[in-house]
Amino acid sequence: MGVGKSVSRLDAIEKATGTAKYVEDLLPCNALIAKVLHSTIANGVVKSINIDEALKMPGVETIVTCFDVPNVLYATAGHPLSLDPNHTDIKDKLILEKRIRYYGDDIAAVVADNTLNAQKALEKILVEYEEYEPLLTPQTSINSDIAIHETCPSNEKARMDFDIKKGEVNSYRGKLSTDMCIGGREDLKSTHYSVPPVHACHIENNFCFAYMEGRKMIVVSCNQVPNTLRRNISEATQMPLGDVKVIKPFLGGGFGNKQDTLYEPLAAFLSKRLGGRCVAVVLSREETFVNTRTRHGMDLYSALDVYDDGKIKNKGIRINSNGGAYGAHGHAVAAYAVTNYFQVYTAEETQIGESSTAYTTLPSAGALRGYGIPQLAFALESQMDDMAKEKGWDPIDFRKKNMMKLRFLDPFDKFYVESNGLEECVDKGRKLIEWDKKRRDYEEFNKTSSDIKKGVGMAIFAYKTGVYPIQVENAACRIVLNEDGSIQIQIGATELGQGSDTVFAQMASEILTIPESKIHVISTQDTDITPYDSGAYASRQSYVSGGAVKKTAQVMKDKIIDRAAGIAKISKDNLTIENENIINESTKEIINNISGVAKFMNYTNDHSQTEHITAEATYTCLNNCFAFGVSYADVEVDVPIGKINIKNIIALHDSGKILNPQLAEGQIHGGVAMGVGYAIGEQLLFDPKTGKPLNNNFLDYKIPTAMDIPEMESHFIETYEPSGPYGNKAIGEPPLISQAPAIRNAVLHATGVQINKLPMSPQNLVHEFIKSGLIEGGRE
Amino acid sequence: MGVGKSVSRLDAIEKATGTAKYVEDLLPCNALIAKVLHSTIANGVVKSINIDEALKMPGVETIVTCFDVPNVLYATAGHPLSLDPNHTDIKDKLILEKRIRYYGDDIAAVVADNTLNAQKALEKILVEYEEYEPLLTPQTSINSDIAIHETCPSNEKARMDFDIKKGEVNSYRGKLSTDMCIGGREDLKSTHYSVPPVHACHIENNFCFAYMEGRKMIVVSCNQVPNTLRRNISEATQMPLGDVKVIKPFLGGGFGNKQDTLYEPLAAFLSKRLGGRCVAVVLSREETFVNTRTRHGMDLYSALDVYDDGKIKNKGIRINSNGGAYGAHGHAVAAYAVTNYFQVYTAEETQIGESSTAYTTLPSAGALRGYGIPQLAFALESQMDDMAKEKGWDPIDFRKKNMMKLRFLDPFDKFYVESNGLEECVDKGRKLIEWDKKRRDYEEFNKTSSDIKKGVGMAIFAYKTGVYPIQVENAACRIVLNEDGSIQIQIGATELGQGSDTVFAQMASEILTIPESKIHVISTQDTDITPYDSGAYASRQSYVSGGAVKKTAQVMKDKIIDRAAGIAKISKDNLTIENENIINESTKEIINNISGVAKFMNYTNDHSQTEHITAEATYTCLNNCFAFGVSYADVEVDVPIGKINIKNIIALHDSGKILNPQLAEGQIHGGVAMGVGYAIGEQLLFDPKTGKPLNNNFLDYKIPTAMDIPEMESHFIETYEPSGPYGNKAIGEPPLISQAPAIRNAVLHATGVQINKLPMSPQNLVHEFIKSGLIEGGRE
Repeated sequence: MGVGKSVSRLDAIEKATGTAKYVEDLLPCNALIAKVLHSTIANGVVKSINIDEALKMPGVETIVTCFDVPNVLYATAGHPLSLDPNHTDIKDKLILEKRIRYYGDDIAAVVADNTLNAQKALEKILVEYEEYEPLLTPQTSINSDIAIHETCPSNEKARMDFDIKKGEVNSYRGKLSTDMCIGGREDLKSTHYSVPPVHACHIENNFCFAYMEGRKMIVVSCNQVPNTLRRNISEATQMPLGDVKVIKPFLGGGFGNKQDTLYEPLAAFLSKRLGGRCVAVVLSREETFVNTRTRHGMDLYSALDVYDDGKIKNKGIRINSNGGAYGAHGHAVAAYAVTNYFQVYTAEETQIGESSTAYTTLPSAGALRGYGIPQLAFALESQMDDMAKEKGWDPIDFRKKNMMKLRFLDPFDKFYVESNGLEECVDKGRKLIEWDKKRRDYEEFNKTSSDIKKGVGMAIFAYKTGVYPIQVENAACRIVLNEDGSIQIQIGATELGQGSDTVFAQMASEILTIPESKIHVISTQDTDITPYDSGAYASRQSYVSGGAVKKTAQVMKDKIIDRAAGIAKISKDNLTIENENIINESTKEIINNISGVAKFMNYTNDHSQTEHITAEATYTCLNNCFAFGVSYADVEVDVPIGKINIKNIIALHDSGKILNPQLAEGQIHGGVAMGVGYAIGEQLLFDPKTGKPLNNNFLDYKIPTAMDIPEMESHFIETYEPSGPYGNKAIGEPPLISQAPAIRNAVLHATGVQINKLPMSPQNLVHEFIKSGLIEGGRE
Repeated sequence: MGVGKSVSRLDAIEKATGTAKYVEDLLPCNALIAKVLHSTIANGVVKSINIDEALKMPGVETIVTCFDVPNVLYATAGHPLSLDPNHTDIKDKLILEKRIRYYGDDIAAVVADNTLNAQKALEKILVEYEEYEPLLTPQTSINSDIAIHETCPSNEKARMDFDIKKGEVNSYRGKLSTDMCIGGREDLKSTHYSVPPVHACHIENNFCFAYMEGRKMIVVSCNQVPNTLRRNISEATQMPLGDVKVIKPFLGGGFGNKQDTLYEPLAAFLSKRLGGRCVAVVLSREETFVNTRTRHGMDLYSALDVYDDGKIKNKGIRINSNGGAYGAHGHAVAAYAVTNYFQVYTAEETQIGESSTAYTTLPSAGALRGYGIPQLAFALESQMDDMAKEKGWDPIDFRKKNMMKLRFLDPFDKFYVESNGLEECVDKGRKLIEWDKKRRDYEEFNKTSSDIKKGVGMAIFAYKTGVYPIQVENAACRIVLNEDGSIQIQIGATELGQGSDTVFAQMASEILTIPESKIHVISTQDTDITPYDSGAYASRQSYVSGGAVKKTAQVMKDKIIDRAAGIAKISKDNLTIENENIINESTKEIINNISGVAKFMNYTNDHSQTEHITAEATYTCLNNCFAFGVSYADVEVDVPIGKINIKNIIALHDSGKILNPQLAEGQIHGGVAMGVGYAIGEQLLFDPKTGKPLNNNFLDYKIPTAMDIPEMESHFIETYEPSGPYGNKAIGEPPLISQAPAIRNAVLHATGVQINKLPMSPQNLVHEFIKSGLIEGGRE
């Protein structure tokens, strides 16, 4: 009971017994099914569409095309409203598109009585295209004369060049720099690191449906940010915001890929056209891969210049980010990576960060666990090891000389670091993995072993919690007291598998002494009635939304005590709550219990003020903090076949106070697995000539299976973060960040080869091993 | 916009287009269907049940019998929790019954994949009974030695004898008095009036389903009082109250018959047995007639003794009420009739009221629009006319001498009448119907007409609003402000067709100046999150729950003004809201608008306290008041065939301030129609030998059709009731009360025959006309 305990998930029984309701479970029997016609070119224009034959197909209710939708551009990113007009999300999306911007773009939709009939009718639609060459990389796109969006002739969504001493030095759209020296400085000659677009691979495909009740449009969607989705639907469909209601039931994973507005405006548009009938937009796994969002592929040009004592003198990075077809999160992901670059390590003299995000004719990139930091960490942490190797330093000692310390002042967001367990994480991990012994032993072993090479590597990270002050960070909560002394918690923060509801219950329990078994967290958000929250992203829920729970529970506690005192006609001064009883703290006398207070206040007939006791509060977070961590990877590389056998990963985290050790460990396990996938196998592939997706299914897209996941250990170095509601800070996204570079650095240790490109798949490794002369070319 | 206007129903579009969701619309595709096995005897015991063959039938999931259910007695009445143990509802119901108490009692349930399979399996169940004689009237029941409930050996649920000067004189259970003199007093020789059990005949049959999500039992039901239903289900199933959630969507009428807990505990019990699967208990129209609740049939023995000047000297009444098989609303309905007896007219010397409610082996009687007062009004208003006729007085003049005046002190509830438009209603109606002329003209006409007789009659009523101080009268409301300046109103008060949601929106609009088109009243109650309200009964919603809306809207207004002042950094002293703008009342300067305040408070990033602006408040009503009215009926009686042709009804009402004239008129129209049915045709019939229902369908049960409904006029005499939120008082139940006695008195005027028994159907009238010698016996 309370925070710090491994309380079982509140939704464990629902999820284990299958009674938890996901979007698809809520679809009414008589719902119509919409299937979308996707373009078979990557770049071009729809000249005409012929739906005559399709309309004759059985079960078809209606067909709409890109020529039928309103010419209203809307934003899709899941950010809260910004009152600053310069900070609003890019509006560049129509419900269906005549201008095709990636292979699979949405050009028409068939609504039929079932999926099969809709699918069959799709096949009868004839489309005539005008086709342009695909622009699959930032380089080709920005250097092309064909504008992907009229509003952005350069194809560069945004660019920010930053010199830490001078501030922002450039914010133009133009040609991409090909100078390998960052900021044009000879001392900042960069190395090129590259990470591919990957997919979130949540279990539940994206799914939404819409129907009307009177003038109200109700959209049910597996979305992480229902309030923003509501605003985006309102904009896209031009219905008043108050006439749109979004419902978010249980989610089968999201990882940020459910932070964007996807087919919800289409569903609403179709429902409205059909007089409010229920229309579902059903995505297959193949569509989920291509038609939702991806992690940004990036080219990172990183440069490092050190003093002989191991301190960093100058550093600089240039990030060219592949944003794909639509605005989505715009430049925010690349910008976030740049700011992180200035936070993890500090250079004495110069720090330069340049970032550019390009429109390309690939699926749109968006938010994905880590939000640009896994990409940055791969480059930065690889380069740290490369430098250590070059200088003959121990990689840990090198990092410890330069990494973020307590009382660090964040140069961007102007807050001081008040809790920092990074060094303790690093030191403890060093012992646990037997770093020093293995570094020596493996080097010995590798001298005599030609095929199997052993290595141990590590990487660190620092990750901010929430997004203050870039955006407002607030959250609201309402607690409803039942007459049996149990409560409901209504909160806009969205459970998507991470266990936030359970942690919220623990927080309320901590204050009210009500056991979690009597705390009912309303997991379904309904934008009409759920207290406002910007939703699940930036690992903000326990940190920001948790503050709302704590604040509201305190309001509830004060009310209960006040009403108990009123009923007993005594002063409330010495009263508190223990074990669900209202007691006098001095005498330990029991005055009443929570249920008694609830019943009396609601049902007394001789009281001038009855009350259904509820509490509601908005919490504003005006601070930020870093979670820290380190990953140690112990690997064997089967050099001839390019196979990395990860023997062990030890992840050590400072996420402040751990609210629920079991759930926290679950986050680490999931993050490590996701990080391993990013390291060794995952990559969305596209035909370089046509832009056609090549592996948008789980047969060809290689996420790690249970066979690929190593033994892993997770350890928490608990600090107390003063700005967290219970000393806690981010834990959702951090666990995946440092896996790929740790494994990469272990491979470096094992083989001496710098792998600067993800994934470290067998084909890529063999290629690199040949290039470095480790194996012969003929074997590639 | 605002109160007093004929704002269109908020749910008009939903209901007109069929997008309004009723319980059945929400049933999941894969729900299991339960059908109940009803007893084929009226009184007895189930000795054994054989389900072997039934279990083998296709589609059957499970069968439960009365031998499987927990032995836990629970209450069914829809009253809020009383903290007074003497005031709690009768607990005498099991989920299924071994002891059979009416023809149709619930003894087993089959759960199958669909209704047909469930029904077929039902037919294979073999039941062995021990049978006792049916006890269909209070007289036979109370005089019988067979106890219908073990806990009540006398079969008298409750009895209250009251002498207005002496207070309560008797409260025992025993034999029914057969003395025609009330209170044993020779000067109070009574006349016997009799009204039959009738049914509410709401369009939507009773329907509920239950399913589990984890440990939470969710019950969706067309019930008027979801919070009480939740408590009753919790008691019946022995699940903690907080683990039970009731959802009430749109309702297709209720009239009080959806104020009781019916099959919801069975649905929950079945779902729990089936691991939380969704189980619906589907009632046919035949079952809705018999297995829900009826209006109490009553025998009323009424006595009147007057002075020569037309003032009432002594009066007394004895009411024997037929409560049917189960406790339901217990004695409350008969007791309510007795208190009303003391309120409408006052006698100078003696006022005696005796009431008894008996268990009988008929379907349970419960709440139904008017709650005992239509029965009382029939006896009382008939007797007033009989006395006027006997004394040669004008019935209106006689009433005006004795009826309730302003500043009347209610002898029971100790409140003063602060608004009273009764006399004005009576006087205006007298003119409109041309009373004095028609009384003379028709008497002349009747002298020469033998078959067709004309008459004009009237009857008055006074009806309390809400139930204070018998029960707590409170209601809570929450208002959620959207960033576009629209709002949601969340309220526990239940829309069941009467239009309460619309009136609530008007009330909020009145204060906030937001047009109703931007006010979204959440019509679906969910006991987990909806602010508490005891629900729809006693015509309390606009009076009590309306108070909650007004109070909460005022809290919201104050917050908006306060925040607007804070944003503008000015004093809030002179600020108010006009046309959705926050203005300075003196200078008329526009400071901000509601949307602007909402957006700023929620999204500002340079404010220490952001806020999702909501308001919540509980309103406590510590008062009561009377609505008044009169009905004038103009009839022709076709004497030989006993047919009443109602030419016109004029209904005049003092319901205080009229909040929405169009909706108010709708209430009158519906009430008049229901009253006409009560007067001329409706009656639930049972085989006197077996207790078997004879007309539980719309072919044999005669509700009035459009052909039977007369021309009608409705008029409002608007008073201002100081205790009502906007001067308003009851309007839901009153309209039906005075129809039957007004028609009856018109028939008396037409024929000179006192019809003391409802319904005034042709067969009953012909019988009475023969008895009185108006027509010859041979024609019966």
